[in-house]
Amino acid sequence: MSTYIAPVKDMLFAMNELAGLQDIVTLPGNEDVSIDLVEAILDEAGKFATEVVDPLNAVGDRQGNKWKDGVVTTADGFKEAYATFCETGWNGMPASTEFGGQGLPVTVSTAVLEMWKSASISFSLCQMLTLGAVEAIAHHGSDELKATYLPNMVSGKWTGTMNLTEPQAGSDLAAIRSKAEPRGDGSYAISGTKIFITWGEHDMAENIVHLVLARLPDAPPGVKGISLFIAPKFLVNADGSLGERNDLICASIEHKMGIHGSATAVMSFGDKGGAIGYLVGEPHRGLEYMFTMMNHARLNVGLEGVGVSERSYQHALAYARDRIQGKIIGDKSGEKKPILHHPDVRRMLMDMKSRTEAGRAIAYYVAGCMDRAKSSPDADVRKANQTRLELLTPVVKGWCTENAQGITWNGVQVHGGMGFIEETGAAQYMRDARIVTIYEGTTAIQANDLIGRKTAKEGGKSMQQLLADIAETGAALRATDNPTLKGLAEALGDGIAALDEATTWLLNNYDANPQAAAAGSVPFLKLTGIVVGGWLMARSAQIAAGRVDEADGDFYKAKLVTARYFAQHVIPEANAYRDAIVNGAESVLALEEALF
Amino acid sequence: MSTYIAPVKDMLFAMNELAGLQDIVTLPGNEDVSIDLVEAILDEAGKFATEVVDPLNAVGDRQGNKWKDGVVTTADGFKEAYATFCETGWNGMPASTEFGGQGLPVTVSTAVLEMWKSASISFSLCQMLTLGAVEAIAHHGSDELKATYLPNMVSGKWTGTMNLTEPQAGSDLAAIRSKAEPRGDGSYAISGTKIFITWGEHDMAENIVHLVLARLPDAPPGVKGISLFIAPKFLVNADGSLGERNDLICASIEHKMGIHGSATAVMSFGDKGGAIGYLVGEPHRGLEYMFTMMNHARLNVGLEGVGVSERSYQHALAYARDRIQGKIIGDKSGEKKPILHHPDVRRMLMDMKSRTEAGRAIAYYVAGCMDRAKSSPDADVRKANQTRLELLTPVVKGWCTENAQGITWNGVQVHGGMGFIEETGAAQYMRDARIVTIYEGTTAIQANDLIGRKTAKEGGKSMQQLLADIAETGAALRATDNPTLKGLAEALGDGIAALDEATTWLLNNYDANPQAAAAGSVPFLKLTGIVVGGWLMARSAQIAAGRVDEADGDFYKAKLVTARYFAQHVIPEANAYRDAIVNGAESVLALEEALF
Repeated sequence: MSTYIAPVKDMLFAMNELAGLQDIVTLPGNEDVSIDLVEAILDEAGKFATEVVDPLNAVGDRQGNKWKDGVVTTADGFKEAYATFCETGWNGMPASTEFGGQGLPVTVSTAVLEMWKSASISFSLCQMLTLGAVEAIAHHGSDELKATYLPNMVSGKWTGTMNLTEPQAGSDLAAIRSKAEPRGDGSYAISGTKIFITWGEHDMAENIVHLVLARLPDAPPGVKGISLFIAPKFLVNADGSLGERNDLICASIEHKMGIHGSATAVMSFGDKGGAIGYLVGEPHRGLEYMFTMMNHARLNVGLEGVGVSERSYQHALAYARDRIQGKIIGDKSGEKKPILHHPDVRRMLMDMKSRTEAGRAIAYYVAGCMDRAKSSPDADVRKANQTRLELLTPVVKGWCTENAQGITWNGVQVHGGMGFIEETGAAQYMRDARIVTIYEGTTAIQANDLIGRKTAKEGGKSMQQLLADIAETGAALRATDNPTLKGLAEALGDGIAALDEATTWLLNNYDANPQAAAAGSVPFLKLTGIVVGGWLMARSAQIAAGRVDEADGDFYKAKLVTARYFAQHVIPEANAYRDAIVNGAESVLALEEALF
Repeated sequence: MSTYIAPVKDMLFAMNELAGLQDIVTLPGNEDVSIDLVEAILDEAGKFATEVVDPLNAVGDRQGNKWKDGVVTTADGFKEAYATFCETGWNGMPASTEFGGQGLPVTVSTAVLEMWKSASISFSLCQMLTLGAVEAIAHHGSDELKATYLPNMVSGKWTGTMNLTEPQAGSDLAAIRSKAEPRGDGSYAISGTKIFITWGEHDMAENIVHLVLARLPDAPPGVKGISLFIAPKFLVNADGSLGERNDLICASIEHKMGIHGSATAVMSFGDKGGAIGYLVGEPHRGLEYMFTMMNHARLNVGLEGVGVSERSYQHALAYARDRIQGKIIGDKSGEKKPILHHPDVRRMLMDMKSRTEAGRAIAYYVAGCMDRAKSSPDADVRKANQTRLELLTPVVKGWCTENAQGITWNGVQVHGGMGFIEETGAAQYMRDARIVTIYEGTTAIQANDLIGRKTAKEGGKSMQQLLADIAETGAALRATDNPTLKGLAEALGDGIAALDEATTWLLNNYDANPQAAAAGSVPFLKLTGIVVGGWLMARSAQIAAGRVDEADGDFYKAKLVTARYFAQHVIPEANAYRDAIVNGAESVLALEEALF
């Protein structure tokens, strides 16, 4: 088994050069943040990820969680690791200082979160869900709710969940049926069944604060009749101490393909008359509140794709350096060499490495947009960054998670037969990664958001602005006298042309042929990801080209090669996606249902 | 859970129209075979697959095999199903009549094997390995060995295994260390450890006949010093009855990502002084013997890719017809409709369906080559078919198994969150499929065979002949006045150009830049698969176009749509692979090992 080592150098590179950390630390609210502090945080977090979180991951996979009579017991070591995680302040780190967090820029907490994701998706989900709930309560809850719940959730003493999905309402939240009846004292009696509740029940924290979507008696049908409630596992007394057990229970946990370390609960509310719940914000606005938070959650799941990709790469690389097997083609030394020397093993590792770095580049770049959109003193900058953030959120979620599939698959393939043996560990990354294109909105849902709300419905303006920015980088690279950079510019130009053509087609067809547009939506998302990834890799190469002769030039040499790999192997896929979008809708839609 | 229904119509179409079954049944040796008989066999086999084999699959996955003190117990129902499988004659069906089989053409046994693969890869492996061993013994064994072992292996009373891999010798069989010492009586004492032995130990048969690769004392080093031995679990007395337990034991079984229903054994030979073994054929020619058989095994693993793809497609389709969720884009009926109406779900299903049919087309086409190469009375026909068979064997193995990855992955994605829950069944197909790009030679090993022995080393003649045949189909389609067929010809033309260019590059670089050629080998294999798949889909469409108005025209309408989908969505990938091959080697090879 390999040990996870946080790729701090590449993280800092993406933060500094692509996300604009130097500017972000000067934004209002970030007075206490410095580049030195950020480096120190990443080093410490990396150490914690290596020493405490990474060793849990295989244990969680092997043992899973145990359910008995509504009680869930986590795998060996999870409880203790979680306690240390909270004690050392990592749990609340990204939260606002108002409730005990450190109020760090999103760019910084993103890098730290990637480490938890790499070390153990299962473990990291508990914090991720808790902080999502914190965000929802902080933005929309009353002062009383905030005071009652947030400090303990930020510290990690209590954890949080999101109770959205119901058996008949998966991707379609409009179909939610859970009910909330007023109890006359300002609280509500909640009843209904929720499924796929991540960390819905466990033994790591004193209390679990469930955010629940449910309908009030007078609720209009559909998405505009859903309200958001807090229903804690244990009711909270006026003095903040824990009171009675609420009428909600974990009815069972799922037997899943991966992320066995985190329990996925079926939650049953109100079996004995109604779980006591408290309305968050105004009635009927629950879905809207969830969506403000869901965008951040989507970025975090995109990051999960990056994190598990990095981990799978490190694991495969360690094996490829170690395993000696077969004669190396074209090698006349006669020496036995590790399989890293086999050209196809290199190809797989280069593919894993370059797509992971491109994914990190996009995720961190978008995190930077989020910081500027929130805190820039300049309204135009705020607006431009908000627009870019919104455009690229589905791309980070969709593209980074789709990439993680092929990357973790290659992670198994590099191991040959050993990859199929569970003890080797490579298979777990692939199984764990399988969920990331599904939860927080499948790739199709991201793609639908991208082609509709984010592109066609605003006339393609944000996409065209993005294409103009990419073209500017292309022009700058072409203007250099560095043949490598010129080559990258050429590949990027092909990508730009493909995305431009696909965007034009989309704008011409979205209203007239909505089904045709939807048929090309996932290819459109992948095409966008490739071009934006190629752009950021090209920008990275541009910076790296000037630094290869520095003392730590190795990192920059490698960056140039990964950028070239991306340009030569990944960007060529852009034309295939363009063709599928522009010419392919007809054959997606032609077959009568009965003839499948 | 869905039920497997053998796609007999598409199987017969591929057999008749692409493999040339009408001609095959007229070849010498096939006097007893008729198209009617073949149809009856497929119907019966389909029924057996549906009723007996398919229900085992989830049980095998859940329970796995149990190992205790060298004894392996199969999952509930396997033993009984295997007994019925043998009683009804399915086990030996593909074997020669000489030893109790039915001597059917490979084209026919291929279609039947696909059914077992769809219904349960795990279950099917026992027969597949047994018949592989039968083939090796029948070709290379003495009359005495044949008489002693083959009838019981063909009937299924005894099963067979292949003991090749050792811990230090995975893909590299030259590194094998197991030993065989002459015992003075014509037999040998075999010792060594073998890993990854499929069905190496189990409780379904009276005896297990292990084929073992080992080195004689005077063996030269490397691949030319490996001999092939038979070492049965129980020694066989002169009267054919079972004698003493041989000195070989199943030391443990692996905990794998998939195919839990088949035990993967670590076999230990000679712990008590030496397992008694019998030399097959001549000394030092073991690897050569294994390879004659391995080519057929590779085709069968390619077929495994097709089989699991078909099963995953059927499972996803059943869910997509059943599950009602969300509003359909562009649908104004207001009706609630199944997710099959969502354009992206259709896109996934069309992708699964068209790639599965293309894979079946190639596998059956190559099976037809095998029949003609063996039995045609015309030496030129035999030679041409042998050449085509050899060229396309790595493509069937490599491309059909690689396709199975994305197909079974989409099979999970169609299910959304339910896909990640093991009880849904979709995840098992994806986990089971994960092995098929690894065993019987990884994709890289197939690709290496394709670019080297099958293409560059003979000056690209077979590939050019193949391209000429494909171009001929393209010309015929262009000459019709059917716009759909003309469109297919155009797409095919792009594919031909890409493969032609890549082949030229390969021929120019294979000797001069062997590492660069190897860096593009897997893309070259995928490119070849796409173009050959596109060719056979285009030929299918050509035939279907003339039959859409027939009484059973629905099948042909659907075939035309799947061919169009393939042309519009899959063939465009050809250029991306060509680019990766022609321009991409540099970036695969550029990074110094230390900088990964």
